[in-house]
Amino acid sequence: MFKKILIANRGEIALRIIRTCREMGIKSVAVYSTADEESLHVRFADEAVCIGPAPSHLSYLKMSNIIAAAEITNADAIHPGYGFLSENAKFSKICQEHGIKFIGASPEMIDRMGDKASAKATMKAAGVPTVPGSEGILESFEECEKVADEIGYPVMLKATAGGGGKGMRAVWKKENLKKAWDSARQESAAAFGNDGMYMEKLIEEPRHIEIQIVGDSNGQACHLSERDCSIQRRHQKLTEETPSPFMTDKLRTEMGDAAVKAAEFIKYEGAGTIEFLVDKHRNFYFMEMNTRIQVEHPITEQVIDYDLIREQILVAAGIPISGKNYTPKLHSIECRINAEDPYNDFRPSPGKINVLHAPGGHGVRLDTHVYAGYTIVPNYDSMIAKLITTAQTREEAISKMKRALDEFVIEGIKTTIPFHRQLMDHPDYIAGNYTTAFMDTFKMDETVED
Amino acid sequence: MFKKILIANRGEIALRIIRTCREMGIKSVAVYSTADEESLHVRFADEAVCIGPAPSHLSYLKMSNIIAAAEITNADAIHPGYGFLSENAKFSKICQEHGIKFIGASPEMIDRMGDKASAKATMKAAGVPTVPGSEGILESFEECEKVADEIGYPVMLKATAGGGGKGMRAVWKKENLKKAWDSARQESAAAFGNDGMYMEKLIEEPRHIEIQIVGDSNGQACHLSERDCSIQRRHQKLTEETPSPFMTDKLRTEMGDAAVKAAEFIKYEGAGTIEFLVDKHRNFYFMEMNTRIQVEHPITEQVIDYDLIREQILVAAGIPISGKNYTPKLHSIECRINAEDPYNDFRPSPGKINVLHAPGGHGVRLDTHVYAGYTIVPNYDSMIAKLITTAQTREEAISKMKRALDEFVIEGIKTTIPFHRQLMDHPDYIAGNYTTAFMDTFKMDETVED
Repeated sequence: MFKKILIANRGEIALRIIRTCREMGIKSVAVYSTADEESLHVRFADEAVCIGPAPSHLSYLKMSNIIAAAEITNADAIHPGYGFLSENAKFSKICQEHGIKFIGASPEMIDRMGDKASAKATMKAAGVPTVPGSEGILESFEECEKVADEIGYPVMLKATAGGGGKGMRAVWKKENLKKAWDSARQESAAAFGNDGMYMEKLIEEPRHIEIQIVGDSNGQACHLSERDCSIQRRHQKLTEETPSPFMTDKLRTEMGDAAVKAAEFIKYEGAGTIEFLVDKHRNFYFMEMNTRIQVEHPITEQVIDYDLIREQILVAAGIPISGKNYTPKLHSIECRINAEDPYNDFRPSPGKINVLHAPGGHGVRLDTHVYAGYTIVPNYDSMIAKLITTAQTREEAISKMKRALDEFVIEGIKTTIPFHRQLMDHPDYIAGNYTTAFMDTFKMDETVED
Repeated sequence: MFKKILIANRGEIALRIIRTCREMGIKSVAVYSTADEESLHVRFADEAVCIGPAPSHLSYLKMSNIIAAAEITNADAIHPGYGFLSENAKFSKICQEHGIKFIGASPEMIDRMGDKASAKATMKAAGVPTVPGSEGILESFEECEKVADEIGYPVMLKATAGGGGKGMRAVWKKENLKKAWDSARQESAAAFGNDGMYMEKLIEEPRHIEIQIVGDSNGQACHLSERDCSIQRRHQKLTEETPSPFMTDKLRTEMGDAAVKAAEFIKYEGAGTIEFLVDKHRNFYFMEMNTRIQVEHPITEQVIDYDLIREQILVAAGIPISGKNYTPKLHSIECRINAEDPYNDFRPSPGKINVLHAPGGHGVRLDTHVYAGYTIVPNYDSMIAKLITTAQTREEAISKMKRALDEFVIEGIKTTIPFHRQLMDHPDYIAGNYTTAFMDTFKMDETVED
């Protein structure tokens, strides 16, 4: 087992990893930027090394400084957390070259899964459903028509040079295809000077449902069921839950089997997540693979009573996994508490926390690196806490979350607590009736008292 | 279901009950003494009524004030928590007479179980093992000898007027009985002017292991496995765990069956605890029954993923229980954090908390009513927090507790955190090798850094 792990991260995830190291009797080394001197991860680690000033490229992304910190402190492994260098193939390789175990994927795996085209091709080869579409650019309308017939309507025409919705057309019926093709090409040519088009199946009422997997060095993998992350704002997840209210036992078995098959096909080592889009008919399609721990991993831990960071460390040390697939017996929800003003387009709200009162009691977990007196600097991600509730049923987990949000007091800055309160009261959320489009129409009710 | 519950208690248990009310959509009424105005239970309840000054007999024990508060606020039930009026037959009766549901035992049940002799007789009748002994006073040495032969050595001779160990003799062999009889009677006569003696089986290396039960109005009961509460100081529990490290599957089945049999025999309604002494041979004997929620109930909740306060409320509302016995799948430990100085004979240490940082993360639960800025008044029990950790194994739960204790910062007063740190490092505790005598020899190591 490792003697000392350097945590190449900050904030709640750095603290999260230090906690597990401590419980496993492994020494921990924190690294920090000058802006993070007062952070709890610095205080709770066994050692701490300053690696540069606030801009991340000068500290948390500065590989040479992190490797130097590991060498100075004699760390035999590095845990990258999420974000920063966690899916950086070059960093994984440099660790390897320095004889330091990178607790994450190999450089080859990161490259393979980091490139969208190669990831999709790999999953296809593994027999995992991917979003059907054209192979690259459509050469003619005839080809366009043929591909649409093959994959079935509705389809999505997309400009290869596209962005911001320009040159995109949803087509629901064959008779509308020609008109869409012409107008999308025209629009694309005008906007980008390029009228190249490709086609994908249109995913109706998509949900973002991901499967947590763990694989070991024996090539064995298992899945730890799903997380529903459909509530997103500009691709940023706001809240997650497990099980998904949209899930059925049949679908879980299918998606879980696909994820395990994919993990074993690529001989995946460690904890990873396979993200799927699920349409309203419960067809599912591979979206991408994350070769790291996810922000939302605690909800999985809560329903399977299992420490995923510990599992990552064990697998990295070559210890085989149990190989057992888990089905959730409980329901767990995570609300990401961000230093943002939900009444003002979620604008970041850095500053000093004057008062902090944390919720507690039965079924409540809080992962946070902030405290009363802590100043949130504007340099980093605005997430300041993860509030997690767990109960026998979804209804109880929501009630518990409402109660915990009511107890949670943070003064001095704006937070997304009021957003989560309103979300937990939203009829569509309560009904479990939401897709990735949920936030497009969600509006804060300004008449509700916080 | 109840519309509004008044909580006739204070501190963490009042807050604990309010939390469940909130999650169940039941309004809550806090009552408080003038000393408790700043307590969180007052802040988090839907309504709060001041019921008098600090001395408990003028507020938390003042039945008329509490009933008046319930009537003013239109509460349809009262939850008494633990301590105070929770096992007061008169209060249970007064509630009944006022048409307010007492969430606890009936007056008759409290009387029956509150009196030691009647409780023991009842349990005997139910077929539950009780500590064997003489029926009252031993009339002669011949009777003494006969009873000793019947119950088997070792035996304990006790002065009926005794106290503080005076007039008590442990006798391990028959040949020593006469000498012990004479000297104990002499000592007792000298000390109390009364040489009456009775006899009980001596429980070797006793452990305090209790079984949590729940019974409903259909007369059905189930048990939720055990808690080991042997680590006590002057009959005050300091830490508890489940499962007991001394437990076997066979013993759990036997003790669980006995507890369920007892509960069904007396038609027990609600949550209750049957406390047993277990000797080194794993014989178990009924000690007493608590007809209320226990301080240490959270460790049971943690291993069965079940809210016991909710269960109490459901049963009180006439809703049948599942009737299923639970076996723990996880391990959970509770440390009672008291405002006491463990280096100074656990002397109370009231005062203002200047800094408070709560531990968090995976497997950590904190139940507390205190916060930074809160002043602990000297009028009440010194317990200020319950720190609970839960993991797959006992070893991991201990590691987690050590980690959580390290993170727990309370400044301004002395607390028992250093005691628990040393306990978690004690070889006998780690080995699970402890009895109710553990604290008799435990000494704080003053050379250890806090």
